[in-house]
Amino acid sequence: MNFNSIDLVHAFSALGAGVAVCSGIGTGIGQGNAAGMAAQAVGRNPGAKGDIMSTMLLGQAVAETTGLYGLVVALLLMFVKPFDK
Amino acid sequence: MNFNSIDLVHAFSALGAGVAVCSGIGTGIGQGNAAGMAAQAVGRNPGAKGDIMSTMLLGQAVAETTGLYGLVVALLLMFVKPFDK
Amino acid sequence: MNFNSIDLVHAFSALGAGVAVCSGIGTGIGQGNAAGMAAQAVGRNPGAKGDIMSTMLLGQAVAETTGLYGLVVALLLMFVKPFDK
Amino acid sequence: MNFNSIDLVHAFSALGAGVAVCSGIGTGIGQGNAAGMAAQAVGRNPGAKGDIMSTMLLGQAVAETTGLYGLVVALLLMFVKPFDK
Amino acid sequence: MNFNSIDLVHAFSALGAGVAVCSGIGTGIGQGNAAGMAAQAVGRNPGAKGDIMSTMLLGQAVAETTGLYGLVVALLLMFVKPFDK
Amino acid sequence: MNFNSIDLVHAFSALGAGVAVCSGIGTGIGQGNAAGMAAQAVGRNPGAKGDIMSTMLLGQAVAETTGLYGLVVALLLMFVKPFDK
Amino acid sequence: MNFNSIDLVHAFSALGAGVAVCSGIGTGIGQGNAAGMAAQAVGRNPGAKGDIMSTMLLGQAVAETTGLYGLVVALLLMFVKPFDK
Amino acid sequence: MNFNSIDLVHAFSALGAGVAVCSGIGTGIGQGNAAGMAAQAVGRNPGAKGDIMSTMLLGQAVAETTGLYGLVVALLLMFVKPFDK
Amino acid sequence: MNFNSIDLVHAFSALGAGVAVCSGIGTGIGQGNAAGMAAQAVGRNPGAKGDIMSTMLLGQAVAETTGLYGLVVALLLMFVKPFDK
Amino acid sequence: MNFNSIDLVHAFSALGAGVAVCSGIGTGIGQGNAAGMAAQAVGRNPGAKGDIMSTMLLGQAVAETTGLYGLVVALLLMFVKPFDK
Amino acid sequence: MNFNSIDLVHAFSALGAGVAVCSGIGTGIGQGNAAGMAAQAVGRNPGAKGDIMSTMLLGQAVAETTGLYGLVVALLLMFVKPFDK
Amino acid sequence: MNFNSIDLVHAFSALGAGVAVCSGIGTGIGQGNAAGMAAQAVGRNPGAKGDIMSTMLLGQAVAETTGLYGLVVALLLMFVKPFDK
Amino acid sequence: MNFNSIDLVHAFSALGAGVAVCSGIGTGIGQGNAAGMAAQAVGRNPGAKGDIMSTMLLGQAVAETTGLYGLVVALLLMFVKPFDK
Amino acid sequence: MNFNSIDLVHAFSALGAGVAVCSGIGTGIGQGNAAGMAAQAVGRNPGAKGDIMSTMLLGQAVAETTGLYGLVVALLLMFVKPFDK
Repeated sequence: MNFNSIDLVHAFSALGAGVAVCSGIGTGIGQGNAAGMAAQAVGRNPGAKGDIMSTMLLGQAVAETTGLYGLVVALLLMFVKPFDK
Repeated sequence: MNFNSIDLVHAFSALGAGVAVCSGIGTGIGQGNAAGMAAQAVGRNPGAKGDIMSTMLLGQAVAETTGLYGLVVALLLMFVKPFDK
Repeated sequence: MNFNSIDLVHAFSALGAGVAVCSGIGTGIGQGNAAGMAAQAVGRNPGAKGDIMSTMLLGQAVAETTGLYGLVVALLLMFVKPFDK
Repeated sequence: MNFNSIDLVHAFSALGAGVAVCSGIGTGIGQGNAAGMAAQAVGRNPGAKGDIMSTMLLGQAVAETTGLYGLVVALLLMFVKPFDK
Repeated sequence: MNFNSIDLVHAFSALGAGVAVCSGIGTGIGQGNAAGMAAQAVGRNPGAKGDIMSTMLLGQAVAETTGLYGLVVALLLMFVKPFDK
Repeated sequence: MNFNSIDLVHAFSALGAGVAVCSGIGTGIGQGNAAGMAAQAVGRNPGAKGDIMSTMLLGQAVAETTGLYGLVVALLLMFVKPFDK
Repeated sequence: MNFNSIDLVHAFSALGAGVAVCSGIGTGIGQGNAAGMAAQAVGRNPGAKGDIMSTMLLGQAVAETTGLYGLVVALLLMFVKPFDK
Repeated sequence: MNFNSIDLVHAFSALGAGVAVCSGIGTGIGQGNAAGMAAQAVGRNPGAKGDIMSTMLLGQAVAETTGLYGLVVALLLMFVKPFDK
Repeated sequence: MNFNSIDLVHAFSALGAGVAVCSGIGTGIGQGNAAGMAAQAVGRNPGAKGDIMSTMLLGQAVAETTGLYGLVVALLLMFVKPFDK
Repeated sequence: MNFNSIDLVHAFSALGAGVAVCSGIGTGIGQGNAAGMAAQAVGRNPGAKGDIMSTMLLGQAVAETTGLYGLVVALLLMFVKPFDK
Repeated sequence: MNFNSIDLVHAFSALGAGVAVCSGIGTGIGQGNAAGMAAQAVGRNPGAKGDIMSTMLLGQAVAETTGLYGLVVALLLMFVKPFDK
Repeated sequence: MNFNSIDLVHAFSALGAGVAVCSGIGTGIGQGNAAGMAAQAVGRNPGAKGDIMSTMLLGQAVAETTGLYGLVVALLLMFVKPFDK
Repeated sequence: MNFNSIDLVHAFSALGAGVAVCSGIGTGIGQGNAAGMAAQAVGRNPGAKGDIMSTMLLGQAVAETTGLYGLVVALLLMFVKPFDK
Repeated sequence: MNFNSIDLVHAFSALGAGVAVCSGIGTGIGQGNAAGMAAQAVGRNPGAKGDIMSTMLLGQAVAETTGLYGLVVALLLMFVKPFDK
């Protein structure tokens, strides 16, 4: 039996990284719906395509942030390993 | 067997950081829907694009806060390690 | 084996902080939808942009409170450490 | 091994405080939707802005109560520590 | 090792108090939607503002009860400590 | 080590009381929506305010029952302590 | 250490009583929505108030049954204690 | 230490009775909505009140069955105790 | 200590019976909605009451089957005890 | 202490049978809604009652299959006991 | 004490079979809604009954596949017992 | 006591196979709704039956893939047993 | 007792493969709805069948990616076994 | 007994990889709905097919990111194994 409690920290960090990146579930639902609504808006008014797409992209860019937070926390847990001495 | 209970704190901090950043799920759904609704509004009234986008961005900025809270708590748990002596 | 039960309190405080900040999920969904509805309202009636945005911001400010409660409880658990002797 | 069962009470109090403040999830969703509906109502009838906002604020103030209950219980669990002797 | 089973009761009481106050989730969602619907009704018919608000407040007052039940049970678990000898 | 299994009964009674009072979640959602629908009905037909409110109150009173059941069971678990000898 | 397995039965009976009474969640949602729909129906046709209310009350009375079943099972578990010898 | 495994059966029977009666959640939601829809139908066509109510009651009576199944199983688990020798 | 593993089978059978009868949740929601929709259909076309009710009853009878399956499995687990030798 | 691991198989088979029959939840919701939609269709066009009912019944018969699969698996687990030697 | 770890495989296979067949929940909801929508389509256009029913049946047949996959996996786990030596 | 840890792998593989095939839940809901929408489209425009059905079938075929992935992973876990030496 | 901790890795890899492929749940719901919406669009405008189907297929192909990611991770966990030495 | 705690890290990494890739659930729902809405938009306005598809693809590409984050984290956990020494 070879047990070292720092490995317990690493094991929970691995699970925590998987949970953290799941913060992107909401981002995925929201951005996908945004893409569909924008496509419908273009279908109704093709002349405003540029305006619609820039609005969609700007809004999606803001929504992307929370998905990125999850990635950042997951990467930090995996590579910076803040709990190592 | 090498067990040190401060590692238990670190293991739960890692899991807690992953859970905390998931507070962004709601932000992601809300901001994405906001982007889609704004894109539809632009499609209906392209002349008001500037007004619509500034309203959307201002509203999204407020919604961003709760996603940021989760990131802040996760970073604090990982780097400030408030439970270390 | 080095186990100190005060570390159990700290471990659950770290997990509790992560759970607490998740109270912002509801705030994020609600504020994001508010941003989208306001953007649509501006698209329909750009002349009332100022009135719509001030209404949206005031309503969002009230909704922000519960997200802030979660942050406050998380910070208190992490830095005031009310269960330390 | 140093285990004191009063620390078990404190550990569950910390977790309970995090769960309690999550009672604000419902408040956040509801108040945010209220903000969006009010913004739309202002867009349709800007002249009634004062009446709409006072109605929204009064309704939100009542909805705030359950979010506050969660904060109160969390603070009591953390600072009054009702289970200490 | 110092374990006293009355502390187990206290630990579960703390967790139970946190769960109990979450009965306010439903109240928060319902009251918030009520606030939004009332604000829209005022926007459509500002002359009936007094009637709409009194109806909304009366309905919310009844809905508040279940949120209060949760608070009452949480407070009783924390301060009356019915399971102490 | 001082363990008495009657304390296990009390610990689960405390948790059960917290779970029981959560039966009010459904009541809260339903009554809040009732308040909002009634407010909208008053906005459309202010002359029938008395009839609408009495209908709403009667319906809410019936819906209150299940929230009360939860409170009753929680109080019984806490103060009658049916499992004490 | 004083452990008696009949207390295990009592502990699970207490938890089971809390779970049982939660069968009222569905009843609460349904009856509350019924109250709101009836209030709207009265607003549209105040002359039929008596008919609408008697229909609503009769329907709610039937819906009440499943909430009552939960209360009955909870009371039986707590006071009849069917598993005592 | 006094442990008898038949008490384990009784403990799980108590929990199982609580879970079984929760089959009424669906019945409660469905019957409540039925009551609301019937009340609205009466509001639109008060002359058909008898026909609407008999249809609603017949439909609710069929829906009641699954709620009753849960009660029956709970009562059997508690009083027939099929697993006693 | 008196432990017999056949009691473990009985304990899980009791829990399994409670879970099985919960298959009626879906049946309850569906049949209740069917009752409400049928009541509305009668309100719109009272002359077709017989046809509407027979359609509703036939459809509900088919939906009843899955609720019955749950009851059958619960009864078999409790009284046939297929895992007894 | 009398423990035989084949009883562990039987205990999980009993729980698995309860879980399996819950596959009927989806069938119940779907078939119930089908009954309600068919009743509304009959209300709108009573002359096509035969065609509507045969369509509803054929569609429900296909939907019944997945509910039956759950029953079949539950019965096989209980009576064929495929894991007995 | 008679424990054989191959029985652990069998116990989890029994639980896995119950979980697998629950893949039919989605199929049941989808097929039931399909039946209801087809019945409404027949009510609106009885002359196209043959075309509507063949479309419904073909679509349901494809949807049936994932329900069947769950049954197949459950039967394989129970009768082929792929993990026996 | 006869415990071999390769049986732990097999036990979790059996559970994993059951979980994997549940990826078909989404496919079942989606394909069933597709069948219903296509049936309604045929009812509105029977002349385009061929085009509607080929579109539905092509779309369902693509949706089938994720259900198949679950079956493939379940079969691989059961018969290829990638974790056997 | 024959326990080798590399088998623990394999056991969790098998469970992880089952969880990973469930990422296809979202893909299945989304693609199925896409198939239904496209079928309705063809029913309204059969002349644009080619354009509608190519749009649907292109959109579904992009949505397929996340389902494929789950399959890829599951296959990697099963056959590449990245955690073997 | 051969236990090495680095295998605990690997076991949780395997489970974490499976959880991480599930962040694609939201992406799958959103992108699939986007495909369906775009197909409907093409059916209404086939002349704008190019504009609609480019909008849909651009929006889906942004939504893809969070699904990719999950894949990246899963691959990193499996192949970079950041917690190996």
